[in-house]
Amino acid sequence: MALDLLIENCKGLVQVRDQLTTCVSGKAMSDLPILADAFIAIKDGLISDYGPQSNSPAIAKKVIDATGRFVLPGFVDSHTHLVFAASREEEFVLKIKGATYEQIAAAGGGILNSAKKIQAISEDGLFQKSISRAHEIIRTGTCAVEIKSGYGLTTKDELKMLRVAKRIGAETGLTVRTTFLGAHAVPKETTKPDYIKLIIDEMLPAVAAEKLADYIDVFCETGFFSPSETELVLETGIKYGMRPRIHANQLNNSGGVQVGVKVGAISVDHLENIGDEEIDLLKNNNVMPTALPGAAFFLGLPFPPARKMIDAGLPLAIASDYNPGSAPSGNMPLMISFACIKMKMTPEEAINAATINTASCLELLASHGSVTKGKVASLIITKPVNSLAYLPYSFGSNWIESVILNGKIISQLVC
Amino acid sequence: MALDLLIENCKGLVQVRDQLTTCVSGKAMSDLPILADAFIAIKDGLISDYGPQSNSPAIAKKVIDATGRFVLPGFVDSHTHLVFAASREEEFVLKIKGATYEQIAAAGGGILNSAKKIQAISEDGLFQKSISRAHEIIRTGTCAVEIKSGYGLTTKDELKMLRVAKRIGAETGLTVRTTFLGAHAVPKETTKPDYIKLIIDEMLPAVAAEKLADYIDVFCETGFFSPSETELVLETGIKYGMRPRIHANQLNNSGGVQVGVKVGAISVDHLENIGDEEIDLLKNNNVMPTALPGAAFFLGLPFPPARKMIDAGLPLAIASDYNPGSAPSGNMPLMISFACIKMKMTPEEAINAATINTASCLELLASHGSVTKGKVASLIITKPVNSLAYLPYSFGSNWIESVILNGKIISQLVC
Repeated sequence: MALDLLIENCKGLVQVRDQLTTCVSGKAMSDLPILADAFIAIKDGLISDYGPQSNSPAIAKKVIDATGRFVLPGFVDSHTHLVFAASREEEFVLKIKGATYEQIAAAGGGILNSAKKIQAISEDGLFQKSISRAHEIIRTGTCAVEIKSGYGLTTKDELKMLRVAKRIGAETGLTVRTTFLGAHAVPKETTKPDYIKLIIDEMLPAVAAEKLADYIDVFCETGFFSPSETELVLETGIKYGMRPRIHANQLNNSGGVQVGVKVGAISVDHLENIGDEEIDLLKNNNVMPTALPGAAFFLGLPFPPARKMIDAGLPLAIASDYNPGSAPSGNMPLMISFACIKMKMTPEEAINAATINTASCLELLASHGSVTKGKVASLIITKPVNSLAYLPYSFGSNWIESVILNGKIISQLVC
Repeated sequence: MALDLLIENCKGLVQVRDQLTTCVSGKAMSDLPILADAFIAIKDGLISDYGPQSNSPAIAKKVIDATGRFVLPGFVDSHTHLVFAASREEEFVLKIKGATYEQIAAAGGGILNSAKKIQAISEDGLFQKSISRAHEIIRTGTCAVEIKSGYGLTTKDELKMLRVAKRIGAETGLTVRTTFLGAHAVPKETTKPDYIKLIIDEMLPAVAAEKLADYIDVFCETGFFSPSETELVLETGIKYGMRPRIHANQLNNSGGVQVGVKVGAISVDHLENIGDEEIDLLKNNNVMPTALPGAAFFLGLPFPPARKMIDAGLPLAIASDYNPGSAPSGNMPLMISFACIKMKMTPEEAINAATINTASCLELLASHGSVTKGKVASLIITKPVNSLAYLPYSFGSNWIESVILNGKIISQLVC
């Protein structure tokens, strides 16, 4: 019954929760339980034990000395579009040079640009393009991730994206949750009513038949899908057993939060443009408000009012939105820095937002989001640092020394 | 006469300049010469040759295949305070919680906090604390760096900082240029006139006697040093053979640029608060305007008007300002991203700003800042990427595969 891995002398074991099975909200987001001078033991890919260093079992197949280092649960990134065929830096340059959204769209840019490339690539080719991004986010500490479709925009290509997302999980060890986002944009060659009909009559049944999606999502935004169209698509998804989540209030206060609350969405994501009314609406239900600070940063939008939401007693999740158009980064340590520097969250709140709360809104609390006996051993070991606050403070620095994914040491930095 | 290192099949050799010996300004900042499908050869730590791949000598002691990868000159970071004794994330947390600058200062924070810690640590201890930051910036592609004193604030401790800065260069291979910044803040136990007298009568002669500083700098800012005090200190430094550079217009439009131009400063740094008058003043002289986007980002200041300066025909440099209070990051790839995302510089302008222009304002054009025969072989090899614009676009991602420092392969990422 030897242990597979023992991490000893941790300066602090972060996010230690004996039994918590819910997210944290409001004032409780400031509580980040840390066990100082601790060991953590791993067997069969799971956390088998932890405790004060004085109780360390001392024997294991492999031992890591974490003196001076914190050990955290791996990040759970609850909103990404990381399956895509090509980056879109050419649009980035056009925007720098002053092109408008319309000009970029006219030049073949935007979501339809990604769609064209997804449609042109084989499933295997798409997998090859995407898996390097999966390895990249593992190295920055992500251990579980949600991946959306939405660049296919045909039944065949939406299915292709979702199959690739699942294959990424199978081949990398990342825990992957999939979301069907057919209602991301309307393809040029069709009308919106016809496209919604296609989503409802053809795409959803096909996605459900192959059991490819845990969730259904809609880009509810002026110029994309209206609140009533969003509601229709989400309600149909629910009938197929997919729980709804929603892109809401990114560019306009367009009613997305209201629809999210109405249909019982598991999360409403973006929220750059919400007011007191939306914050009030989010009270007393189980909808997780989710901030995507990388997109706000990259697009120059106002950051979501995180402080207001937390002070109103809401929970908050932080995810990367990794995608080729508006958030070309899946770096969760940097998202934590944005949360603290730009949204005035404390380091404790930001780490809760990116671990236990994102695990909650991906329904992964049984396995992820905290250091708890029996959860998967997906952990981050920091470099030696003075305090936990150093992590968000030292923005852009790589403070991760090792990542343990399901008990396996995946990346160890060469210094 | 075998080559030491040959890098072959580069997708693009970036910033190839046959003979350029000046910085680039205005429209010329858009010109970033790239040689496609190229080799570069290294001997005795220098660039001995480069050219189209078809002309590659093919034989060397070591060969790197750079297929799909760009090769750039290493970054030159022309403004840092990377010699310090301790990070200051505790102040960062106080600020998040709403503490004012005055409250933080009253709680022992700010520059005087760093000074207390520098004064309490041995020279060797300070070296040990600082060298890890030097290794960190090498891994993100910095090959030459300016390091300032200014956290000593006593003669003994200012000398200690400068000695440590020089030792970092000697022990890491980083090319280090040093700047005496005694006039960074006024110690509590003295008055400003007395402190300026100490700088002039004691510190400057001592620094000069040990030949510890290439430059002299002053924090010209409301509440710190006035334009006339700044001028006095800089002019005295000039007498000791130190060329002036200056912290100007960070928090207020306080006359720093005017002093810089008057004394013939080699650079005026920060510039968050300048207007058309300052931009006009900077025309037709050799003062390098320098933006420090990491500080603007971290403090939530407006970014310097880079676009306006370049469009007015000025040159522009980009540096990190790496320091424990207002810019705890020395990550030059992220500074390039800030330049493009927040200051609307093109990728070509940003790379020029962080290589040839920073080399110019550290008087390192003979050895750094471009791929030129005879310059030191301090180079960055990217991971495989589609285009150069991908580098600033993919903010927060680590796009560096290897760094070559003076011909030596220093860091190779394990994937």
